[in-house]
Amino acid sequence: MEHTSKAEESRHGLSNTHPIDVTWGDCDAAGVVFYPRYYAWFDTCTHALLSSADLDHHTLRHTYGLMGTPLVRASADFRSPATFGDRLRATSVIVRVGQKSFTVEHSLYLETRLVVEGSEVRVWAVADPSNAKKISARTIPTNVRDALMGKKRE
Amino acid sequence: MEHTSKAEESRHGLSNTHPIDVTWGDCDAAGVVFYPRYYAWFDTCTHALLSSADLDHHTLRHTYGLMGTPLVRASADFRSPATFGDRLRATSVIVRVGQKSFTVEHSLYLETRLVVEGSEVRVWAVADPSNAKKISARTIPTNVRDALMGKKRE
Amino acid sequence: MEHTSKAEESRHGLSNTHPIDVTWGDCDAAGVVFYPRYYAWFDTCTHALLSSADLDHHTLRHTYGLMGTPLVRASADFRSPATFGDRLRATSVIVRVGQKSFTVEHSLYLETRLVVEGSEVRVWAVADPSNAKKISARTIPTNVRDALMGKKRE
Amino acid sequence: MEHTSKAEESRHGLSNTHPIDVTWGDCDAAGVVFYPRYYAWFDTCTHALLSSADLDHHTLRHTYGLMGTPLVRASADFRSPATFGDRLRATSVIVRVGQKSFTVEHSLYLETRLVVEGSEVRVWAVADPSNAKKISARTIPTNVRDALMGKKRE
Repeated sequence: MEHTSKAEESRHGLSNTHPIDVTWGDCDAAGVVFYPRYYAWFDTCTHALLSSADLDHHTLRHTYGLMGTPLVRASADFRSPATFGDRLRATSVIVRVGQKSFTVEHSLYLETRLVVEGSEVRVWAVADPSNAKKISARTIPTNVRDALMGKKRE
Repeated sequence: MEHTSKAEESRHGLSNTHPIDVTWGDCDAAGVVFYPRYYAWFDTCTHALLSSADLDHHTLRHTYGLMGTPLVRASADFRSPATFGDRLRATSVIVRVGQKSFTVEHSLYLETRLVVEGSEVRVWAVADPSNAKKISARTIPTNVRDALMGKKRE
Repeated sequence: MEHTSKAEESRHGLSNTHPIDVTWGDCDAAGVVFYPRYYAWFDTCTHALLSSADLDHHTLRHTYGLMGTPLVRASADFRSPATFGDRLRATSVIVRVGQKSFTVEHSLYLETRLVVEGSEVRVWAVADPSNAKKISARTIPTNVRDALMGKKRE
Repeated sequence: MEHTSKAEESRHGLSNTHPIDVTWGDCDAAGVVFYPRYYAWFDTCTHALLSSADLDHHTLRHTYGLMGTPLVRASADFRSPATFGDRLRATSVIVRVGQKSFTVEHSLYLETRLVVEGSEVRVWAVADPSNAKKISARTIPTNVRDALMGKKRE
C-alpha cells in the first residue's frame, strides 16, 4: 500500500452518519460489547458511506469489476463501554485517498460520550485472474477519487 | 492507560500457539474471511494464552475479582487472504507488561504464509462499584506480572 | 417445558414490527445471508417485542430477578434468499403463553416476499442459586402474562 | 422440498464427530452460549461431515457446479447450557436422503450431558442462471446419494 506524497490528504472527504443499535447478541459475558463487533460496525458504516456516494457494493462489483474494498489495516481505540439497548451514532469520514487505497475514520458516540474511534485502510481491489486467492490493487478511477474526496459531481 | 518508562518491555513474554479452523460462516460474499473475525480469533488466542498460565477467565473473575481484561486498543495488518477450509496457526506473545495494562501480539499463518498480524492492549479491570457501566483499571499483581512476562513460577 | 392445556393459546398476543438491514458481514461466500444470522435477528426481534411492553432485559433482570428468557426450542423455514443491502421487515407475535414459557413467531419479509419464518420457545428463567450453570424456570407473573397476551394495562 | 416416499430413510447414514471449543465471544451477557451460535456450529459440523466423504464445499462448487447446500429448515432443542471454556463433542448423522434434499441431525454433548440437539434440511442447489437471487434445487447424483447414505465406495 502506498504512503507516498501522492496521497491527497482530505480531512473534509466524503462523510456520513449511521445509527447502530447494540443488541443482546453483540455483548459478551461481561455485559459489554464484544470488541470485534465494533469492527463489523465499522464495515457496515463504510458500506453506508460508500453507498451515500452511489458506490454500493453491487455497483463496485458490476460497474467497476471489483471484488470489493478489502482491508489492509484496521485499528480502534476503545474509550468507554456500551451495552445492549444503547443506540450509538457513528460518524464516518474519508481522511485519505491514495492511488490504490483510502482511509476511513469512524467515531461511535452514545449521546455525547465517545465509545470508540478507529480507522480502516482499504484497497480498490480485483480478484487476481490467475489466482482466485490473490487480491490485486488497482488505481482508483478519477470519478471515484473525486467522490471519495467529497467533491460533488455536477 | 500508561505508556511510561515503568512499562517493562519483554519480547520474550508468555507465548502460545493456537490452531484456527476457518469455517464457511467466517467468510463473506467475496469468499474470504470477514475481517472482524480475525479480532474474534485474537480474543480467543489471548484467552488461550492466559489459560496456558493458569489465568483463564474463571480464575480472573473468582480469584482476582476481575470483570476481565477489556481492550483499550487493537490493530491489525491484513497481509494475505484466507478462506474456508484453511487451518491457520496463530502465535501469540505478550510484548509489554505495564502497571495496569499489557500488550499481546498475534501472528496468523497459513503454513509459511503470513495472513494477518495484530496487537491488543488490554487492561486489568474491575467493574466500577459505583457505576456498572464504568470500567476501572487496577494494578496487575506481582505474580500475574511475572507470569505474563514469562517468568516461571518455582 | 409444559405443553399442558393450561397454556392459553393466543394468536392475538403482543406483536411488533422491526426493520432489519442485511449487511455485508451477514452474508456468506454464496452471497446470501448465513442462516444462523436469522436466529440472531429473531433474538433481536424478541427483545424489541418485549421492550414494546416495557419488558426490556434490564427490567427483566432488575425488576423480576431473571437471567433472561433463554430458549428451549427454535426453528425456522427458509423460504427465499436475502442479501446485503436488503431491508427486511420482521413481524413478531406471541402465539402462546404457558405457565413458565411462551412462544414467539417471527416472519421476515422483503417487501411482499416471505424470506423466513420461525419460532422461539422461551422460558421465564432464573439462574439456579445452587448451581450457576443450571437454569430454573419460574411461573410467569400475572401482569407479565397479561402483557404477553396483548391485554392492555389500564 | 419433497417429503415423498421416495425419500430413503437411513438412520445409519454418513456420520461424523467434531469437537467444538466454546469461546468467550460465543457467550452472551447471561454467561451462556448465545443460541444462534449453535446453528453456526451445526453448519460447521455439516461441512465437516460432507468433507469426511470428500464432499467439501470446493468440490461441491467445482465438481458439481453447486452454490452449496442451502437450508430450507433448521430446528434445535436446547437441553442444558454451555459456557466459555467448555469443549463440546458434536455427533452428526445424515438421517434422510431425498431426491433433492437431505436431513442432518446434530447432537452436542459436554462429556455425557446433552447440551443441544437439532436438525438441518438442506437442498442440493445451484444458482438460478436467470436470477442470481433465486436458488434452484437439483437431483442429488447417485454417487453422492450413496455417499450420504453411508455406502462405502469400492
